[in-house]
Amino acid sequence: MKLGVCYYPEHWPESDWADDARRMKLLGLELVRIGEFAWSRIEPSPGEYDWSWLDRAISTLHAEGLQIILCTPTATPPKWLVDQYPDILPWDAHGRPKKFGSRRHYCFSSPTYRRESARITEALALRYGDHPAVVMWQTDNEYGHHGTHESFSPDAAGAFRQWLQRRYESIDALNTAWGTVFWSQDYRSFEEVDPPNATVTEANPSHRLDYRRFSSDEICEFNREQVDILRRHSPGRQIAHNYIGDFTKLDHHAIGASLDVAAWDSYPIGLLSEGDDSEADKAHWLRYGHPDFAAFNHDVFRHCSPQWGVMEQQPGPVNWATHNAAPAPGMVRLWTWEAFAHGAAFVSYFRWRQVPFGQEQMHAALLTPDRQKAQALVEIAHVAGERETTGELESTSARIAIVLDYPSLWQHEIQPQGRAGSVLEMARTLYSCCRQLGLDVDVVPQGADFESYGLVILPSVSILDAGMCERLRDSGATVLATPLTGSRTLNGHIPENLAPGPFANLMPMQVRVFESLPPFAKPRVMAGGQMFDGSLWRESVKSTAQPLALFENSESAWLRNGRVHYLACWPDEPLLMHVLRQLCQEAKLEVRETGRDIRLRRAGNIQFAFNYGPDVIDLTFVGAPETDEDYLIGARDIEGAGVSAWRI
Amino acid sequence: MKLGVCYYPEHWPESDWADDARRMKLLGLELVRIGEFAWSRIEPSPGEYDWSWLDRAISTLHAEGLQIILCTPTATPPKWLVDQYPDILPWDAHGRPKKFGSRRHYCFSSPTYRRESARITEALALRYGDHPAVVMWQTDNEYGHHGTHESFSPDAAGAFRQWLQRRYESIDALNTAWGTVFWSQDYRSFEEVDPPNATVTEANPSHRLDYRRFSSDEICEFNREQVDILRRHSPGRQIAHNYIGDFTKLDHHAIGASLDVAAWDSYPIGLLSEGDDSEADKAHWLRYGHPDFAAFNHDVFRHCSPQWGVMEQQPGPVNWATHNAAPAPGMVRLWTWEAFAHGAAFVSYFRWRQVPFGQEQMHAALLTPDRQKAQALVEIAHVAGERETTGELESTSARIAIVLDYPSLWQHEIQPQGRAGSVLEMARTLYSCCRQLGLDVDVVPQGADFESYGLVILPSVSILDAGMCERLRDSGATVLATPLTGSRTLNGHIPENLAPGPFANLMPMQVRVFESLPPFAKPRVMAGGQMFDGSLWRESVKSTAQPLALFENSESAWLRNGRVHYLACWPDEPLLMHVLRQLCQEAKLEVRETGRDIRLRRAGNIQFAFNYGPDVIDLTFVGAPETDEDYLIGARDIEGAGVSAWRI
Amino acid sequence: MKLGVCYYPEHWPESDWADDARRMKLLGLELVRIGEFAWSRIEPSPGEYDWSWLDRAISTLHAEGLQIILCTPTATPPKWLVDQYPDILPWDAHGRPKKFGSRRHYCFSSPTYRRESARITEALALRYGDHPAVVMWQTDNEYGHHGTHESFSPDAAGAFRQWLQRRYESIDALNTAWGTVFWSQDYRSFEEVDPPNATVTEANPSHRLDYRRFSSDEICEFNREQVDILRRHSPGRQIAHNYIGDFTKLDHHAIGASLDVAAWDSYPIGLLSEGDDSEADKAHWLRYGHPDFAAFNHDVFRHCSPQWGVMEQQPGPVNWATHNAAPAPGMVRLWTWEAFAHGAAFVSYFRWRQVPFGQEQMHAALLTPDRQKAQALVEIAHVAGERETTGELESTSARIAIVLDYPSLWQHEIQPQGRAGSVLEMARTLYSCCRQLGLDVDVVPQGADFESYGLVILPSVSILDAGMCERLRDSGATVLATPLTGSRTLNGHIPENLAPGPFANLMPMQVRVFESLPPFAKPRVMAGGQMFDGSLWRESVKSTAQPLALFENSESAWLRNGRVHYLACWPDEPLLMHVLRQLCQEAKLEVRETGRDIRLRRAGNIQFAFNYGPDVIDLTFVGAPETDEDYLIGARDIEGAGVSAWRI
Repeated sequence: MKLGVCYYPEHWPESDWADDARRMKLLGLELVRIGEFAWSRIEPSPGEYDWSWLDRAISTLHAEGLQIILCTPTATPPKWLVDQYPDILPWDAHGRPKKFGSRRHYCFSSPTYRRESARITEALALRYGDHPAVVMWQTDNEYGHHGTHESFSPDAAGAFRQWLQRRYESIDALNTAWGTVFWSQDYRSFEEVDPPNATVTEANPSHRLDYRRFSSDEICEFNREQVDILRRHSPGRQIAHNYIGDFTKLDHHAIGASLDVAAWDSYPIGLLSEGDDSEADKAHWLRYGHPDFAAFNHDVFRHCSPQWGVMEQQPGPVNWATHNAAPAPGMVRLWTWEAFAHGAAFVSYFRWRQVPFGQEQMHAALLTPDRQKAQALVEIAHVAGERETTGELESTSARIAIVLDYPSLWQHEIQPQGRAGSVLEMARTLYSCCRQLGLDVDVVPQGADFESYGLVILPSVSILDAGMCERLRDSGATVLATPLTGSRTLNGHIPENLAPGPFANLMPMQVRVFESLPPFAKPRVMAGGQMFDGSLWRESVKSTAQPLALFENSESAWLRNGRVHYLACWPDEPLLMHVLRQLCQEAKLEVRETGRDIRLRRAGNIQFAFNYGPDVIDLTFVGAPETDEDYLIGARDIEGAGVSAWRI
Repeated sequence: MKLGVCYYPEHWPESDWADDARRMKLLGLELVRIGEFAWSRIEPSPGEYDWSWLDRAISTLHAEGLQIILCTPTATPPKWLVDQYPDILPWDAHGRPKKFGSRRHYCFSSPTYRRESARITEALALRYGDHPAVVMWQTDNEYGHHGTHESFSPDAAGAFRQWLQRRYESIDALNTAWGTVFWSQDYRSFEEVDPPNATVTEANPSHRLDYRRFSSDEICEFNREQVDILRRHSPGRQIAHNYIGDFTKLDHHAIGASLDVAAWDSYPIGLLSEGDDSEADKAHWLRYGHPDFAAFNHDVFRHCSPQWGVMEQQPGPVNWATHNAAPAPGMVRLWTWEAFAHGAAFVSYFRWRQVPFGQEQMHAALLTPDRQKAQALVEIAHVAGERETTGELESTSARIAIVLDYPSLWQHEIQPQGRAGSVLEMARTLYSCCRQLGLDVDVVPQGADFESYGLVILPSVSILDAGMCERLRDSGATVLATPLTGSRTLNGHIPENLAPGPFANLMPMQVRVFESLPPFAKPRVMAGGQMFDGSLWRESVKSTAQPLALFENSESAWLRNGRVHYLACWPDEPLLMHVLRQLCQEAKLEVRETGRDIRLRRAGNIQFAFNYGPDVIDLTFVGAPETDEDYLIGARDIEGAGVSAWRI
Repeated sequence: MKLGVCYYPEHWPESDWADDARRMKLLGLELVRIGEFAWSRIEPSPGEYDWSWLDRAISTLHAEGLQIILCTPTATPPKWLVDQYPDILPWDAHGRPKKFGSRRHYCFSSPTYRRESARITEALALRYGDHPAVVMWQTDNEYGHHGTHESFSPDAAGAFRQWLQRRYESIDALNTAWGTVFWSQDYRSFEEVDPPNATVTEANPSHRLDYRRFSSDEICEFNREQVDILRRHSPGRQIAHNYIGDFTKLDHHAIGASLDVAAWDSYPIGLLSEGDDSEADKAHWLRYGHPDFAAFNHDVFRHCSPQWGVMEQQPGPVNWATHNAAPAPGMVRLWTWEAFAHGAAFVSYFRWRQVPFGQEQMHAALLTPDRQKAQALVEIAHVAGERETTGELESTSARIAIVLDYPSLWQHEIQPQGRAGSVLEMARTLYSCCRQLGLDVDVVPQGADFESYGLVILPSVSILDAGMCERLRDSGATVLATPLTGSRTLNGHIPENLAPGPFANLMPMQVRVFESLPPFAKPRVMAGGQMFDGSLWRESVKSTAQPLALFENSESAWLRNGRVHYLACWPDEPLLMHVLRQLCQEAKLEVRETGRDIRLRRAGNIQFAFNYGPDVIDLTFVGAPETDEDYLIGARDIEGAGVSAWRI
């Protein structure tokens, strides 16, 4: 439960550093992340390192007792490196190299860049690996951002062929796995296979799925090469990467396996602006962010590596969204407590001081460019003090698990069978409805242990692991699956027994027809005497199980087989709430309906409540104490953007 | 009036083939289309043919008495061919070659591909040209799909220059024909002329029009080369191509001249999803398709070659539309009868069995991937039986002709003079209104014989043939022309006498101003004491003819000169229905208003009615018999998605 | 106050020329612009000039006493030149050369094209520089149109490096000016710097701002090279360029410094169609154009060069807008008088005769292609006669100035901090509201003299000149600034004292937070006891000045410090009108509210009124005379599309 900040000493006069460090300390910060984009200052010319300024910056911070998260600077190779080795550049899907001039201008598959990345990482690790102030490393920055999760360079093509060779061994195996007989795409050797870009119409979906797997694996390997060097030269330090929220182009579970800390960058206001919520919701939460956005990502990243944290926390308006509102006063504190209540090891704010030049000059910070205090700083001081009241929070598992599977996400992006509706959106809708019932949720991979859960949800996990289905059945948990669950094999084919594939062992059913529908043609669903709406997806299911809801043509919309439930359409929120209420009852999960703006989260024996709206709300309706003395933080009447906490 | 199916034996274990053939026969199918995308299996390596599997597949089908439509596999050249000759690839308008990995990855102008196309066609023809099971050939598949109707490769540029040389003979003639003096575009030789792509702003419209003509001609020539080979080596067999519906980038009349059969691929539900209908209409016809879509294309393709048929009929949800709903039960039967009532020689369903891999794995079929019956199969069995009741239907000409002219369509796409509104849309709107009046329609080229028609409609045919105008005048038919008719010369210029060019011989008028209007600024029209709305297009016309309707500023909106009528705006449906009712009266065409969902079609002395909606409707309002015994098919109360037929 | 026309003799049979000239003269035209796109006819082959036809065309016009505006033909280099020197082509932002085939296919930085431009200019100047008919030259045509204001060719990259070297002298200075330490973008030499295109994500904003400056400077230099040649060989003639309206990608003040005449091309109906007005406004003004569009541009171009005029005046429907309506009868006359009332030296119509071929064949003219009179011709005859009534109008300065600064426009385009809302839109909104108060406005550069103004408005001028702020303070004028004023330094950085930078000397304030808001989340403003709406932009300001309006959270929305006012949000029109009414009172500017469609403009002691709507309006509410005898033009009841004028 540490507080930290992102700092770029190279942006500021050296004369400011000591005062900056002093003020950080005074504020209650313990961690400072540095070095992130500093390659051109660390190595101004090929092979000529300038460590002096970084030595002094680290010493200055260390002198105040601050602990350092040191970054490898590989997200921004300097111009001389790009000029020397143009083959490090990534290529877009049209086959054009992208140019130097912003960031992330490298291809993960470039052998040259792999070598240079290892070289600069090793140089840093050798220099600072044993420094007492350095407690953590961050590899690179936000892998895959700006569409760099895949590249179509010649190097990428070559690496893909090798990856395929390792995966399939024989070209016949590949031809079978991809179904290349379709449209005369048989290959005679791995040498004949290209990346699936720039085709006349859509490329083979198995081909595309493998390219997504390959691209994620390349990032994984790139990261592991840095990790190996850091472990060798900087023993005892933690290693983290800072992921982007709501970004699932790479497999966080796979990358996280070699890391100690899964950190992520949390920008709730920016993400609301970019998201698909209605205008009414966007207006309502303009200065609060969606109440489930940050929490969802917390619950994702908590299950990727041994520890997790927030590496960059939004402190004010950002510069990159379609519209950039300021958070309501109190929200920076609220977000911090939401993270801690979810078990974050640290929350680090981005950034210390607003930089008056460059692409992010309009990105707020704790200090304005002229070093005055910004709103966030006041709130952080508040949190720093409050930490003493709660003590270190206990990271607590939830009773509900939502399964998130990256290849399933990719498979559906490749063959969505209709515009609108993604697996991630389905997962987040399910997550939000659980939260509106006052329940904590874990977001876990298929390989998770389900023994401790009362309810496990499969949000359209298309590529189901048969082993997971067995463990689910044995777990005793109530299970809910949504359309497309189990609809594809490992290679993205329709299973021999049709959808839901191995899930048919839990629910005796077969999907005969899958339809995607336009938003203006909603399937109606009759459940428990009430009419509800579905959306977008609708399945015609053949089953011997008990129907709990029917479509208008009397086909089953909701099936039940003992503890196992299946929804045959995308449920609109009222229908989904109706279903979840019943499942929680079956699973003996106590429900507390929170309404639109209130959210709950338990940490050990402390119950938190958060108010993502402007109105003062009496919290007793969610079981909070009657008298204010019983509150560790806040009070019974929670203010807009407020936090309350009490022991349970 | 045969039934058929598209089959890909190479996708399935050979052990399934005999049973598949048996089930096809049992279902009542006579035709099986095969070989369409099988090049990589027919010629797995350069010059090494593997006929064995295809021999066996054909024998197996033949053994059941099934007749075969054999396809040239040229829509999918194999990877080894593309690697050997990269010059066969098409180039996009930005000057980038497209890559292997889907289909149609070839340029029609590549001399290399012309040679290879001839080679594989000849090999197939030599092998199977005399096979007793082979009754028809299909050349390639869906020419021009996925934007391949034009290519901007160096080969295309070279072929274009030769095409121009043949067309104009001297560069001065080209300069005059294109008006190159405008913007200093004079050419000194044909060698200086490039394709009209990647220019700073729009290229010369005559240049673009000629590129469209050239591109269509290249497809025509490519097709004819295959046809010549097939005729040489497979005497007595019919030759077909399967066109795309609603796709007018190539001239079906020109290509059709060398074919025996104009076949097309009918996907009414998919096309509704992709079309411009209102959300209310799309919701209403979600599972029915637009009631005039398939019929319109039937009436187009009926006039392209001696025979016509449906080569691919949608049997369930497709995989490629924005949203993919399942047809209402009954629609596959309805579409089949609609095709037969229009005179189709055959209806062939796409495809026999849903393939569980590849780009189209979510495309429904007659069997599910696990070989169970899908909905369509039941309906086909129904049709197969009903055929006996009607006997072979008589192909019957309509009394109304709508003229469809491809260069006019292209000219308007090149210079639309405002967003929204296409010539095809105008033609289809006119077609739909005629159908709603219960009338059958022919869609014919300018070269048609008009003697037998009571009403001929020119839907904004901009490049009018003067000879056609004369034949029209001599025909005795009532004539209706809409805005832009005759507005351009052969080269896409404004005629010397201004619009409507040669049509001025039928209607004494001159268009002084053409306006394109936004959808929110509709011109109002007063006709017969009623106010109507027009849309999008409005002309100021000078004429001595009688005005039958006026715009608000008293300019003429509808002109009449004897039997010839002219509309000076795009008519909204109520105005158009008003006009057509009067014209039908003049032309002595008996009108039966069908309402939104019912459509009629006469075949010889049998009258069909189709119900494109969900409600049961009493058909007597369209003159159907009172008692159910008088019906050959169906009954007086036609069900949703139902078909009724009776003798007249 | 001359009338003119654009004429392309090369498009027409020589036999028509004399009659054309006679009809022009008869109509009352004095000026004829020719030669604009005639390079391929002047120099049909490399080095072989054909002057004969142009000699005869000029003689023919001269014989009627018409004066000639002769154009350099450099907007359309002929095909042979492009083939000979492909390096003259511009490259798009993806790094692709654009092709020949339309116009403007050259890169301003190509040394080859600079040489060729000089060569053809000199050849023309030598031939016709002393011709008595030639009174004016036009350089090129519509610089920057179709996205050609910047190019990313190798020549452009080279020229950019030289430009940077001249501007910064040392690479360290550039690194500081751009803040390249951000994201590791330090350069070691000017040779390392590329144009800021095709980057992975957005490039450095200072880098981009300099590329915009460089690109504008390149046009400036290209133009000056032609001007120098023309001045040398054609003494005593005026030199003009015809700019595009509402197009601010190039700095008209900088280019205008070397010209005698800033001419522009006025297409009010086309621009309305392309603009951002509401559908209701677009429908209302469909045939009138926005009442402030032409006037705004007049007031911009009046301050660029010693004289100004309208080189191309829309005469009817154009061919290039999304929708192309015909102007209401009377509008061509109205637009002409609006230009003269603003002080135009001439109004020249585009074009004489509608050309029946080429890209612009649907662009109306004074004659239809068959040489009949079009609507505009009648109105021009009307104007030509009316000129005698008013005599030469006096060009009159306004009492209100709006400051337009090109680098500020570019800076905000590069870093808008949120979609929607541009500096140009802010300026035009302010302009329109002033006009609705019946006031004339000058649109001036920062370097203007403000002594004569009662009110000076800074519409979000982000890069403020400190000297201007001082002159403003000394001027005695009331001042109004809107959000983002002074928010950036010359290099596009946040100022050391934060926004509003040097404006803080006039208004004691500091902007603490800038927010961009979606259109559906409007900030509310309480002013003078009334509630108003703001939009899009909102600032949190710290100030000791007097608040005249507050946001809902009690922060200041409108600040006043003596004569200086500041608005902290984008004001919706009612709020802005409220503010301006008060400021006009302070500045003692007499207000006459005109309503939606009426606009006023004073020229010396003549007051004009224009009616941009369809309704007859009694003008006495704006102080017009009671009796019709007191009108020089028109009458008290001004008709739709009418003009009235009276002495004051």
